[in-house]
Amino acid sequence: MKTPFRKEIAGMSGYVPGEQPKERGVVKLNTNENPFPPSPRIKKLLDGFDPTLLRLYPDPECSGLRRVIAAKFAVREANVIVGNGSDDILNIITRCCADKNMPVAFFEPSYSLYPVLARMQGARCIKVPLDGNFSIPRKIPDAALSAPVFMITRPNAPTGNSFPKSRVEEICRKSKGIVFADEAYADFADDNCLDLLGKFNNLIVCRTLSKSYSLAGIRLGFAIASEGIIEQMMKVKDSYNVCRLTQEIAKIAMLDDRHFRKNVGTIRENRENLSAELKKLGFEVVDSQANFVFASPPEDGPSAHEIYLKLKARRVFVRYFPGERTGRHLRITVGTRDQITRLIHLLREFESE
Amino acid sequence: MKTPFRKEIAGMSGYVPGEQPKERGVVKLNTNENPFPPSPRIKKLLDGFDPTLLRLYPDPECSGLRRVIAAKFAVREANVIVGNGSDDILNIITRCCADKNMPVAFFEPSYSLYPVLARMQGARCIKVPLDGNFSIPRKIPDAALSAPVFMITRPNAPTGNSFPKSRVEEICRKSKGIVFADEAYADFADDNCLDLLGKFNNLIVCRTLSKSYSLAGIRLGFAIASEGIIEQMMKVKDSYNVCRLTQEIAKIAMLDDRHFRKNVGTIRENRENLSAELKKLGFEVVDSQANFVFASPPEDGPSAHEIYLKLKARRVFVRYFPGERTGRHLRITVGTRDQITRLIHLLREFESE
Repeated sequence: MKTPFRKEIAGMSGYVPGEQPKERGVVKLNTNENPFPPSPRIKKLLDGFDPTLLRLYPDPECSGLRRVIAAKFAVREANVIVGNGSDDILNIITRCCADKNMPVAFFEPSYSLYPVLARMQGARCIKVPLDGNFSIPRKIPDAALSAPVFMITRPNAPTGNSFPKSRVEEICRKSKGIVFADEAYADFADDNCLDLLGKFNNLIVCRTLSKSYSLAGIRLGFAIASEGIIEQMMKVKDSYNVCRLTQEIAKIAMLDDRHFRKNVGTIRENRENLSAELKKLGFEVVDSQANFVFASPPEDGPSAHEIYLKLKARRVFVRYFPGERTGRHLRITVGTRDQITRLIHLLREFESE
Repeated sequence: MKTPFRKEIAGMSGYVPGEQPKERGVVKLNTNENPFPPSPRIKKLLDGFDPTLLRLYPDPECSGLRRVIAAKFAVREANVIVGNGSDDILNIITRCCADKNMPVAFFEPSYSLYPVLARMQGARCIKVPLDGNFSIPRKIPDAALSAPVFMITRPNAPTGNSFPKSRVEEICRKSKGIVFADEAYADFADDNCLDLLGKFNNLIVCRTLSKSYSLAGIRLGFAIASEGIIEQMMKVKDSYNVCRLTQEIAKIAMLDDRHFRKNVGTIRENRENLSAELKKLGFEVVDSQANFVFASPPEDGPSAHEIYLKLKARRVFVRYFPGERTGRHLRITVGTRDQITRLIHLLREFESE
């Protein structure tokens, strides 16, 4: 048969997520998972869960969970959409706002899924290069401000730094389209863009439970925006996109605020420790507001890619993004103190080889 | 702001799933859920599940589950893709094969999600009307056979009848594109299209655990096809589209063959009982191969829509699809014997009102 596949799909490569090694005993610092367990209340939920309920479809509107989210962020249920991970939310907004004639704007480097999603829609990407310090350039091109959707990863990935909130505000004010603040890492940061929601009805703030709630395994992301935006997004989402157990687990996890704060606090402490240790070894470390650091090794030693491979051979996984700018760095998830010690120990060993 | 939404999205209505009433004590025969519990092994799985694992992303390739599926159907892991419900699979194939220049073909009536998915892609629908008995017409239009993808719901929804396998074979042979056999209900039928996979490399067979495994709540669908087709579909699927618990639950449920067979056997018995009882009341009942029946009330009594409303007022939910042909019928999920008795009792009551 002649190919029945759209040329955009046939011609593209899929998104490549970080490796998920199956063997045990590896130190896994490559996909920004949280090294600490989620709320202990989940154990009780699972023990008491009646599996008979699984015969029924989940609530397609996720009302219970949306109410918990709405209460937490002082918005209304109609301002919240829930997704099968925040990738689902990104998928939905791209399908809403991008096609052959409607480009997607984002900074570069940022989350490498954006161009893959744009490509599937046959949409052009307007890439705005960050400056030398991975900061937003002084002048943002008009083409980006005219795009139907402008994705801003804040804190940024894979660089870890946050952009001044005033710049996000400026983009919301100047943009002719939707500004999508991808705040996957915002719980680890000093501030976030939630308060801008009251000022700008073209802003979407997107969050995930994957990192700060230690729940990457349940797939739960959500977005908050004006009712008009949520209404359009709800049309595109799969009716039953979030399974029953995930809805239940997310609800109780989000209500366990004490566990959440402690968890995030420890990650922030460990982040400072990891950054300091790397700097002692001569690494340049981008100031991180996330649960990972982006660091480039000293020029007189092995390259970032070499270190990545050497670490992997010793069963320590970090993330390496090829490319002229990103390829000089390693992205290292903030782990436990033990994991950090192991990593630093190995780096020191490589130094003296 | 000028609307940043694609006109396809702004101008459309979302898919409307069957009602999911939140109160207890309703007789729910409207969304083809299975009235019996899933495998008892799930209880043990949940009790023993270590929630710490939820901090990690699920396997993006769902290898363990795909191997179980592959073994069950005597294919290779590379022939299987797993989705967040079979709606996710439908979504993926539509994004692979449909756009402004690539239409989607399907019979009418069939699953009402197809045109919604096509619309999101800006794709034209080639609707092939079923004949008076909801059968495939003798001559299938060339336009449908030239479409990049032709969706065949078998057994069909909402009508419940199955099409002769020879007709599916004919479509596979004549079609210039992919033939998507949507077999959501095939476990309740006398036969299925799996054996055609060996003959036609343009065929996809899609299944779900929602109905026959009593697991609508976990969201698990899968498709089997040639390696080349699966490879393209894998590019479009969300990296982490199936959560950890769903992967684990699906695996053990699919391995519990004894429970599965008993469950399906009981539904088939109850289906015959429900059909017979409806016929006694003068309903015309389409011969069903699914876990629901499609039945039109006698012409001298209340209309299908009136009965739907009356039943709802008595807290018995069945599904009503407006439209010239479908609107003369009710789609009634096969429930427990008690639920069937309750339904028939009410219908008899309405008759004598």
